[in-house]
Amino acid sequence: MASSRIGLTLLRSRVMDADAAAAMIAPGSTVGMSGFTGAGYPKAVPIALARRIERAHEAGEPFSIKVWTGASTGPELDGALAKAKGIEFRLPYNSDPIARDMINRGEMNYFDMHLSQVAPMAWQGFLGPLDTALIEVTAILPDGSLVPSSSVGNNKTWLDRADKVILEVNRWQNPALEGMHDIYYGTALPPDRVPIPLVRPNDRIGQASFRCDPEKIVAIVETESPDRNLPFKPADDTALRIAGYLLEFFGHEVSRARLPAHLLPLQSGVGNIANAVLSGLLDSPFDQLDAYTEVLQDGMLDLLKAGKLRMASATAFSLSPEAALELNADMQRYRERIILRPQEISNHPELIRRLGCLAMNGMIEADIYGAVNSTHVMGSRIQNGIGGSGDFARNAYISVFMAPSTAKGGSISTIVPQVSHVDHINQDVQVIVTEQGLADLRGLSPKQRARLVIDNCAHPDYRPMLADYFERAQRGSYGQHAPSLLAEALSWHQRFIDTGTMRQA
Amino acid sequence: MASSRIGLTLLRSRVMDADAAAAMIAPGSTVGMSGFTGAGYPKAVPIALARRIERAHEAGEPFSIKVWTGASTGPELDGALAKAKGIEFRLPYNSDPIARDMINRGEMNYFDMHLSQVAPMAWQGFLGPLDTALIEVTAILPDGSLVPSSSVGNNKTWLDRADKVILEVNRWQNPALEGMHDIYYGTALPPDRVPIPLVRPNDRIGQASFRCDPEKIVAIVETESPDRNLPFKPADDTALRIAGYLLEFFGHEVSRARLPAHLLPLQSGVGNIANAVLSGLLDSPFDQLDAYTEVLQDGMLDLLKAGKLRMASATAFSLSPEAALELNADMQRYRERIILRPQEISNHPELIRRLGCLAMNGMIEADIYGAVNSTHVMGSRIQNGIGGSGDFARNAYISVFMAPSTAKGGSISTIVPQVSHVDHINQDVQVIVTEQGLADLRGLSPKQRARLVIDNCAHPDYRPMLADYFERAQRGSYGQHAPSLLAEALSWHQRFIDTGTMRQA
Repeated sequence: MASSRIGLTLLRSRVMDADAAAAMIAPGSTVGMSGFTGAGYPKAVPIALARRIERAHEAGEPFSIKVWTGASTGPELDGALAKAKGIEFRLPYNSDPIARDMINRGEMNYFDMHLSQVAPMAWQGFLGPLDTALIEVTAILPDGSLVPSSSVGNNKTWLDRADKVILEVNRWQNPALEGMHDIYYGTALPPDRVPIPLVRPNDRIGQASFRCDPEKIVAIVETESPDRNLPFKPADDTALRIAGYLLEFFGHEVSRARLPAHLLPLQSGVGNIANAVLSGLLDSPFDQLDAYTEVLQDGMLDLLKAGKLRMASATAFSLSPEAALELNADMQRYRERIILRPQEISNHPELIRRLGCLAMNGMIEADIYGAVNSTHVMGSRIQNGIGGSGDFARNAYISVFMAPSTAKGGSISTIVPQVSHVDHINQDVQVIVTEQGLADLRGLSPKQRARLVIDNCAHPDYRPMLADYFERAQRGSYGQHAPSLLAEALSWHQRFIDTGTMRQA
Repeated sequence: MASSRIGLTLLRSRVMDADAAAAMIAPGSTVGMSGFTGAGYPKAVPIALARRIERAHEAGEPFSIKVWTGASTGPELDGALAKAKGIEFRLPYNSDPIARDMINRGEMNYFDMHLSQVAPMAWQGFLGPLDTALIEVTAILPDGSLVPSSSVGNNKTWLDRADKVILEVNRWQNPALEGMHDIYYGTALPPDRVPIPLVRPNDRIGQASFRCDPEKIVAIVETESPDRNLPFKPADDTALRIAGYLLEFFGHEVSRARLPAHLLPLQSGVGNIANAVLSGLLDSPFDQLDAYTEVLQDGMLDLLKAGKLRMASATAFSLSPEAALELNADMQRYRERIILRPQEISNHPELIRRLGCLAMNGMIEADIYGAVNSTHVMGSRIQNGIGGSGDFARNAYISVFMAPSTAKGGSISTIVPQVSHVDHINQDVQVIVTEQGLADLRGLSPKQRARLVIDNCAHPDYRPMLADYFERAQRGSYGQHAPSLLAEALSWHQRFIDTGTMRQA
């Protein structure tokens, strides 16, 4: 019955079905689950647990749990548990539509965190105890150590910190993943923290597998299920223009000797625009590139295949089904040039600043002074979460935020007088790019930034409105450092809520 | 004519008066000056330069310069040059009232930066060349190296990066300062950055003096002028209550084993409330404390004297005249337990996160969801600048923001529905304290935070207004994750501008 993926014989007796494993999770408990951007999350036990929760609710019994993960997972986890009304508390990131709706109806407490801080804060203790770790792995080795799956996330910390461990051994994951991971066990709480000995993106500073006390493993469930690999839309004209402006800027910086010829380690957020930038690099003169990032998308794989990218470090994959097939078919080769690390390392401020990453992240909106909202639609409805954008933006060598200049068919301007929620303060936003152009805000005062953002980045339909606001603010503002009209600063958002468009009637 | 403070004989011929030195600074040039919180800034040449600028303006000639410093300076620098309309661009921090007024009238371009990033960004090149370094030192040693003054700031970088150097050798500074400083020369631009080998606040990782190519030194001016040492107001009841709540919280964290018994390295912002917290520590059970902070105020000196504080690391002093006298009288003893470092090291995210600082900073306002404004009064009028608060708040073990619950005699509520400007996002604000109480926001969802901030921190006069806003927002908001009423979110600030009070009529 037990597959060869369970190398430690004594653990084979703990193999059971998902329902039996789910029965070990108590109501009200806190469960640390694997999963990062739809990769490496448990796929069987959460569904079984959701069924159990639904039965309890039908019987009139309360049943919900607290869910900690790496970042986003898949419909079999967040979707199923949210649908069952089984999550009372969620951290640190969510992109599941069902869970998102519950959060935005006020039915789920959501703690939106910097991804680098999840593991250390779990150790700090204020989040409470971790009852159970529920982790997908690729295999259990004969010495009891665990071969990670297609994401690392916070799994090291969940395994170390939880009272008991439930494993899903997923045969769908390629056994050749073994050796790709670098699990660093040198972290500690202060006053015992020491420098992290990583100075190049390709440095390996840890071990290839997780340690785990076999005594804590109470259940093993065998699965054979693919990750939530979603297709990418091909890059549209807007994305290609954004990519073009950004690559032109990098070229300009190299020509002025303000960037090395082979750039600096790339960090790229998830999404079609980020992917378009990576695609643009394929046809660019840049080569011998490195990536030190959070997630590996299709574009990174393409760059590796083309030899443009020497290596890529991340904490997870986020691939289309086609790219996942290709990775699996050629894992031995890719494994030499990909390193997956715990997210406290992939996103560590110490390392991002040391390496000098070029951070490229998406946004919902930016204001004329350069503050960025990447999470809260109209200031109150959360989209996903801040994720790693704050880790990278504040510590990057150059921090870039990108988006089309409008959304919802032109009814929303990405550039607004004042963002309705701030995730990235102007100090952490150095370059803004839309399909209209690029604004290099470094070294500028607020008013200089405003002129540049309006002229270079705003959509022509909204540019006169922004210029008019800025001109009037320079007459009517309380202070003239960053002129604002408080009664009007958020009125564009209110107009969208009231009328369906930010345009003036 | 040349004093014994100039140990390298060949440099004595370059001693001149301040007017002659000021004549070497060309219109339009960029000058990197010493100075951090009123300590160690040049006191003679800026005044002479201001006179020269005024004469040029009287003759109808344009004359202004770009001024880079460590942080704030004194009236002889920012005040004199601003009064002469001689500053066209200023970074990274200002607290001078004349310069502040010019910034807020839109007459001076001000680039408000994270203090840890000034030196590395100066090297990145986008700020342009640095023509002149104008640095106060305590002495020039026989080997040509420079004994730093009462602040370090960015002096190392200005000396290395400037084309020419003007020194002020200030005999008022105690010669026994020699040996107190730790100047680390291990920084580099990526890809050549390496781990900073500091693991304890008292580690010395550099050398005691600045290196400086004697060929670059074009002028030396001898001075004998005190730093801008301002008296401290004694702590009032409000400050004492804030200090009391915070120390009670630390005690609570220790009792729950979430903080070590001797706490973690203290970072304390400047001001009377911060000083009250330090005074409170004098009478507390805590001992064997360390400080890893930006500035040393009177309270830190008192803790050192009392033996409560084992040592303190910073980049500058900011003392009352009495405390400065005391420090000078006993410098030999204090020197053993004080280290002054470059601000790129005192404020480095790598080190703050490694050491796990307890960050305690002031604020202008906080909103019910925990975002903090520490710079922009009514969203547009800058007070000083973000300074090092972002470096510390994001990387601290626990990040605390403190202020009285009202300002301007009760006409301004420190707790508002939405801050008018964001310097610190909710993820970086873990504890808020006013004289009303303390809110520990860690691990909470936005609505949980709002209830706690309103109940624990808001002034009773404003609490019902806040509760009413929050209650209505939960019915009328676009999303229910962080409910807001956009048309009303900034209305308290507008009401203050219109009527002189945030109170409702």
